[in-house]
Amino acid sequence: MRKIRMGMVGGGRGAFIGAVHRIAAAIDQQIELVCGAFSSTPEKSKLSGQDFFLPEERCYANYEEMILTEKTLPEGERMDFVAIVTPNHMHFAPAKMALENGFHVLSDKPACFNTEQAEELEGIVAETGLLYGLTHNYTGYPLVKQAKKMIEEGKLGKIRKVIVEYPQGWLATKLEDTDQQQAAWRTDPTKSGAAGCVGDIGTHAENLAEYITGLKIQELAADITAFVDGRLLDDDANVLLRFDNGAKGVLTASQISVGEENNHNIRIYGEKGGLEWRQQEPNTMIVKWLEDPVQVYRTGMGYLCDEAAAATRTPAGHPEGYLEAFANIYLNFVSQIREFQAGNKEIKFDYPTISDGVRGMKFIDAVVGSSKNNAAWTAL
Amino acid sequence: MRKIRMGMVGGGRGAFIGAVHRIAAAIDQQIELVCGAFSSTPEKSKLSGQDFFLPEERCYANYEEMILTEKTLPEGERMDFVAIVTPNHMHFAPAKMALENGFHVLSDKPACFNTEQAEELEGIVAETGLLYGLTHNYTGYPLVKQAKKMIEEGKLGKIRKVIVEYPQGWLATKLEDTDQQQAAWRTDPTKSGAAGCVGDIGTHAENLAEYITGLKIQELAADITAFVDGRLLDDDANVLLRFDNGAKGVLTASQISVGEENNHNIRIYGEKGGLEWRQQEPNTMIVKWLEDPVQVYRTGMGYLCDEAAAATRTPAGHPEGYLEAFANIYLNFVSQIREFQAGNKEIKFDYPTISDGVRGMKFIDAVVGSSKNNAAWTAL
Amino acid sequence: MRKIRMGMVGGGRGAFIGAVHRIAAAIDQQIELVCGAFSSTPEKSKLSGQDFFLPEERCYANYEEMILTEKTLPEGERMDFVAIVTPNHMHFAPAKMALENGFHVLSDKPACFNTEQAEELEGIVAETGLLYGLTHNYTGYPLVKQAKKMIEEGKLGKIRKVIVEYPQGWLATKLEDTDQQQAAWRTDPTKSGAAGCVGDIGTHAENLAEYITGLKIQELAADITAFVDGRLLDDDANVLLRFDNGAKGVLTASQISVGEENNHNIRIYGEKGGLEWRQQEPNTMIVKWLEDPVQVYRTGMGYLCDEAAAATRTPAGHPEGYLEAFANIYLNFVSQIREFQAGNKEIKFDYPTISDGVRGMKFIDAVVGSSKNNAAWTAL
Amino acid sequence: MRKIRMGMVGGGRGAFIGAVHRIAAAIDQQIELVCGAFSSTPEKSKLSGQDFFLPEERCYANYEEMILTEKTLPEGERMDFVAIVTPNHMHFAPAKMALENGFHVLSDKPACFNTEQAEELEGIVAETGLLYGLTHNYTGYPLVKQAKKMIEEGKLGKIRKVIVEYPQGWLATKLEDTDQQQAAWRTDPTKSGAAGCVGDIGTHAENLAEYITGLKIQELAADITAFVDGRLLDDDANVLLRFDNGAKGVLTASQISVGEENNHNIRIYGEKGGLEWRQQEPNTMIVKWLEDPVQVYRTGMGYLCDEAAAATRTPAGHPEGYLEAFANIYLNFVSQIREFQAGNKEIKFDYPTISDGVRGMKFIDAVVGSSKNNAAWTAL
Repeated sequence: MRKIRMGMVGGGRGAFIGAVHRIAAAIDQQIELVCGAFSSTPEKSKLSGQDFFLPEERCYANYEEMILTEKTLPEGERMDFVAIVTPNHMHFAPAKMALENGFHVLSDKPACFNTEQAEELEGIVAETGLLYGLTHNYTGYPLVKQAKKMIEEGKLGKIRKVIVEYPQGWLATKLEDTDQQQAAWRTDPTKSGAAGCVGDIGTHAENLAEYITGLKIQELAADITAFVDGRLLDDDANVLLRFDNGAKGVLTASQISVGEENNHNIRIYGEKGGLEWRQQEPNTMIVKWLEDPVQVYRTGMGYLCDEAAAATRTPAGHPEGYLEAFANIYLNFVSQIREFQAGNKEIKFDYPTISDGVRGMKFIDAVVGSSKNNAAWTAL
Repeated sequence: MRKIRMGMVGGGRGAFIGAVHRIAAAIDQQIELVCGAFSSTPEKSKLSGQDFFLPEERCYANYEEMILTEKTLPEGERMDFVAIVTPNHMHFAPAKMALENGFHVLSDKPACFNTEQAEELEGIVAETGLLYGLTHNYTGYPLVKQAKKMIEEGKLGKIRKVIVEYPQGWLATKLEDTDQQQAAWRTDPTKSGAAGCVGDIGTHAENLAEYITGLKIQELAADITAFVDGRLLDDDANVLLRFDNGAKGVLTASQISVGEENNHNIRIYGEKGGLEWRQQEPNTMIVKWLEDPVQVYRTGMGYLCDEAAAATRTPAGHPEGYLEAFANIYLNFVSQIREFQAGNKEIKFDYPTISDGVRGMKFIDAVVGSSKNNAAWTAL
Repeated sequence: MRKIRMGMVGGGRGAFIGAVHRIAAAIDQQIELVCGAFSSTPEKSKLSGQDFFLPEERCYANYEEMILTEKTLPEGERMDFVAIVTPNHMHFAPAKMALENGFHVLSDKPACFNTEQAEELEGIVAETGLLYGLTHNYTGYPLVKQAKKMIEEGKLGKIRKVIVEYPQGWLATKLEDTDQQQAAWRTDPTKSGAAGCVGDIGTHAENLAEYITGLKIQELAADITAFVDGRLLDDDANVLLRFDNGAKGVLTASQISVGEENNHNIRIYGEKGGLEWRQQEPNTMIVKWLEDPVQVYRTGMGYLCDEAAAATRTPAGHPEGYLEAFANIYLNFVSQIREFQAGNKEIKFDYPTISDGVRGMKFIDAVVGSSKNNAAWTAL
Repeated sequence: MRKIRMGMVGGGRGAFIGAVHRIAAAIDQQIELVCGAFSSTPEKSKLSGQDFFLPEERCYANYEEMILTEKTLPEGERMDFVAIVTPNHMHFAPAKMALENGFHVLSDKPACFNTEQAEELEGIVAETGLLYGLTHNYTGYPLVKQAKKMIEEGKLGKIRKVIVEYPQGWLATKLEDTDQQQAAWRTDPTKSGAAGCVGDIGTHAENLAEYITGLKIQELAADITAFVDGRLLDDDANVLLRFDNGAKGVLTASQISVGEENNHNIRIYGEKGGLEWRQQEPNTMIVKWLEDPVQVYRTGMGYLCDEAAAATRTPAGHPEGYLEAFANIYLNFVSQIREFQAGNKEIKFDYPTISDGVRGMKFIDAVVGSSKNNAAWTAL
């Protein structure tokens, strides 16, 4: 047994999500960062590689060079998979090239710049038979897995209502006019895609709701807004939802909700029970019943399901958080790579895949389309 | 000086909201219950009157008798105002008759059975010059008054987003098929009106949002549902909002949200700040800022505005609740009666009036109408 | 049936707790304030009486006049009981005189100025056979009654540990040097007694712990402090507890805990479960188990015991608070008066009595004595 | 630049804290695990090493072999420091030997089996001039650093009162009679030392209180108990504290508080303000003021001090937890090793040292001694 070897595209100095990916990959000590094309310029890429103690020859000038060169290295030395942590418009090309050259791919979300790309990628994944994971990291939380399991088992009865919210406040002012790199590309239609807030965090909300409930959003009616003067993409979205089982719901995503940090949360109500989970206090889930007292489910407790237990590293009361949930995506993805390397093609581990990616892109299309149509119901 | 004298219509044995009104009227010791037509049968009305230590002759067989008889009593002995605590379909007639016979009216909400009635009542109030109050009791909370004041003063900047929710779970099963009297009339279109949940609690949500923000809902897109099989009126509503200043929002009301008690809450975001208030913990309001730490405003503290201070009876940390907030409506209403009796017609005290009542009825119409039109935007 | 008639000693303009008592007496509409000796001067007493719409002749110059005059009135017109809401040093004399003249007494806490008085009063209560209640109002909360019941029924198993806290911050500065009347007498040994904070709020903590657990504090080791320069009585207390069943505990009371309002709370742990209740959010109680999820008990829910249900006026989610809990003491006390008037001497209703009062005074003695002895264990 | 190389003593299969240390070491990607003596038997040590992908020759039979063999390897290949993650009775010997052979030491807490050992170790650290860190990991949290800084800067004024609690419930039954390895050694006087709960978690509480306040506990009065029948060491402690500046306080530690997970928390009150922090929700700190609204400080916000900012990896709202706080100890320790390797002896990074270790052992002695003396005040 050896560690699984990761190459990274993007995530050099000044980036945000690249560092998160590296920590997530490091936590469980199953993955080794062996190479990268960390930046848009070869010089910055090398400097970033030094930060990670990489040998100079494996800090590549660009992802093309990385993929082609690594391909020439012997198995066990060359990277096993590529982590893509660039802005949205640069997800597709390296993912496609990596897959076509025999490397598994773990990509940041949303999967691509548009639905067309995502569908093409879905085809490539199918053709190559390689693994593709997408870091909808909020599904990595233990209590999210517990919620999913309880609903699967019918504990809440038939689901009637879902309220999923993702409020942030960091774009309440025109931050893209400062030198804030994260704000700049997220509000730029040439980099972010058809949507701003909806693509960046709305897709997380869509994914979380469908992941936990096992339902599909059938149609939606969306009212999106760019509140900040001169902003080119939406910074706020209010969306009515109808699910395929008849459940109704509301999805909100916002980056102008002043004072909100990263307050992703979901409430689900069935015929027999309800549950509530909030990402900022992720180790607590409130479970509600028709007549019995509300229960407080907590990460690490013995009554949780196996899937939740497997997603935790410490006993109850030792709070795990965002990075550990993110690490759970990585851990499951590389566990699946080990299966692949052992010749098993069956998906045994739980991580978001290209079909989640396609779904997310279609969600963006539906929201943007509905809103242009004055919130007309739009199928997803 | 003497206590203000109240006659009550409805609220006999087995009723819910009548008892709440009597407690609210009692708390500040400014009001004396002197008579009532408490029930649909004279016998039950008498029995109920005994519970309140009333003399038999002032426990009337019906509201008509009460109004006509009391009118014959001398000022200072006869009732000063009528409190109407019957189901929705019996608000209008006693209100109209009371006003037309010279009595002020304090009515439970929604104001009437339909908008037509409410508009007629608005005319009668204007003609008679008498006082009409409506118990949108949630506006009676000190921190709701603080929220209103802070927004008026511009502390949050221009308002961009409002999320107002009113989830309950008590009608998640077909409670109206049991002998639960509260469920029975609320789900009966002949007693409740055009809407169920939307009329019962949705109107509170609409009123709270407009009260605090000072904005008007300009149009809305609503998706309402009767989830419980065989239920005749909506038990759940999801509504997109657009306000007259360009703000957007979401209003949800639900009586099938299993495990929710009476979880009315509101979050408001402006350009400079945000705030959050939850009725179940009403002495706490979260105030959010662009860069500074979140603040926790608490009932009874010295930094609150005069309106909030006037709505509290005890120092900070001595929780006041639903009944005290309800009492604040009563206290302000009878303080206004004292003004009236002293010859001052100017409204000096803050309580919901017939215009709130008309607005609530139009809100019901808009929601029901929009939903019938598949959530088409509908003006309010 | 008629309302029970109350006379009040103290509680005139500028007082705090008198107004609380009047609201508590009013809430359930079973009690009528018929007379009072509201202040130390006849003039102020009359003025205060006007605020309560009392006839001038029943606003007495002092409690002696009130008791002697009321005694001459016919039953049904004269007061039924005396509510004593003066500072500590003026509890004993009116209570003694009222009882000796045939009036029941409901007194604010602590019962007296010192233990000697309390024990004398206990004798008088026994001799006269009249009713004496003490407003340890925190025992009036529904969930406090639920907690008591669950422990009685053995739900938590044998109790091992109790942590009871009562932090406030309002005396963190030398407020008694301003014209703050509440601070002045509470920090004055000639009015407050042997203790400041310990008498004012420490006794509530002692009473709550013993009430809920059904245990008695057997001995304690106390370290009390006057942190504010020049203050004559303690403003902070840390106390180790040993209970009569072998349980251990900690009691803290403080009036210099900056930023704390009235944060009375208790946590109790038995062999099988634990519970936690906080006065500032009194409608929630956390119940903890060895292996099962934590439960959240809520006021007004159907699963509560009869005693808790009887102490609530509204359905779950309609927060009741300090005043309603206080009203529960009043309601139970006057319900017992009705029993008395019907000839039944057996105590059927739950309210604190003179034996709680004596116990509170002994607690003060033990804490002050232990602290003088450098926290030596002192029996209670 | 290269990664810092770690050897580990203890932490093989079945251990708890060893895995925590390895994750903490991995998170920031500055440390490489290069060797270990993971278990009491050579076979288990080898097997454990495989789990970590170590070459067989660096999975040593015991710590002696590890230290002596590694010493022979060239700098840059041999380990730089030893992490000691064994039970208490096996901290001293490997620490002493590692230091005497030129290796820095990062040890789990408490530092040693008894004070004598800790003082001897303090001497060895001084003599060798090598670095010694102790994983009082709760000081690694960003908001703990913020709290310390605010008090240092006088924001709260002179400190008057400290309440520090560490309740757990996992030893509420006789778990040591099952095969639970963690319970077994912690309740065994030959492995744990003079105290059970007090050593295991009481020392964390002592350390946290002194770390944040900058004060020293001058004397204490302790009442410790073994509530579970047949248990050989304390499982509960209640302690009165007196600090060197005149502040008073209470420290409780418990492992029989049913339903508590790992609820370490602290409240501190000064003349001008107070603060409250709870380990289970570590990204929130409540800050209290004399008159202004309570503030909620949150990890990752721009208003935090540099020390808090440096201890965070993600923006606000991305919860970091126990493992990240633990990693902060590791990161600071190895940053100091880099300084050492660069020839700088001055301590520039913040991590607990041998003097904290000695203090913790003296705290255990004082608590056990005081309790044997019936809670007599005992100097620390």
